[in-house]
Amino acid sequence: METGSQVRKTPYYAVIFYSKRTDGDNGYGSMADRMEELARRQPGFLGVESVRDASGEGITVSYWESLDAISSWKRDEAHQAAQHKGKQEWYKQYKVRICRVEREYGFDGL
Amino acid sequence: METGSQVRKTPYYAVIFYSKRTDGDNGYGSMADRMEELARRQPGFLGVESVRDASGEGITVSYWESLDAISSWKRDEAHQAAQHKGKQEWYKQYKVRICRVEREYGFDGL
Repeated sequence: METGSQVRKTPYYAVIFYSKRTDGDNGYGSMADRMEELARRQPGFLGVESVRDASGEGITVSYWESLDAISSWKRDEAHQAAQHKGKQEWYKQYKVRICRVEREYGFDGL
Repeated sequence: METGSQVRKTPYYAVIFYSKRTDGDNGYGSMADRMEELARRQPGFLGVESVRDASGEGITVSYWESLDAISSWKRDEAHQAAQHKGKQEWYKQYKVRICRVEREYGFDGL
């Protein structure tokens, strides 16, 4: 996975997706892989960071060049179907926040 | 934990902290609890979402009323000490992004 550790010129945009999964996989894993693969091919995609713990709580942050790139991805047909199934089946709860990244810094001890 | 699922009036600010932990606890767990407790008492703190998986990859997003609130917390003395020890001992790598939250929406099937 791209970890977003590369430095980019700000501003760019971030989508913070916080979620709680329902129990069981129910096709979620393969859908998540496919959505990440599709997102990477969208114009304006910059990177993604994603973590889910054993309790089913997860945060995925995707990074984009513009708000338009985010809107286009939201409207993508396969993504729309996944969003629909997400509400029906995969998520107990989620929250989406669209943000403008103003500044970034980091540490790399590797 | 506050999950940030409550709706807030935008804009507000988010700090996205993506990290990879070193092996072993080395006092990390108790420090993390203490930092969260301290952050909650800072003026302008709005909420936090935090997930770490078994591999040691984690994302913590904290939400704030203003950039000033974020700067004050960064300069807090106990927090400064934790940041220092973070680089020395707890993190292999991290990335901090300061963002302005423009828009939010969510789903609650609970």
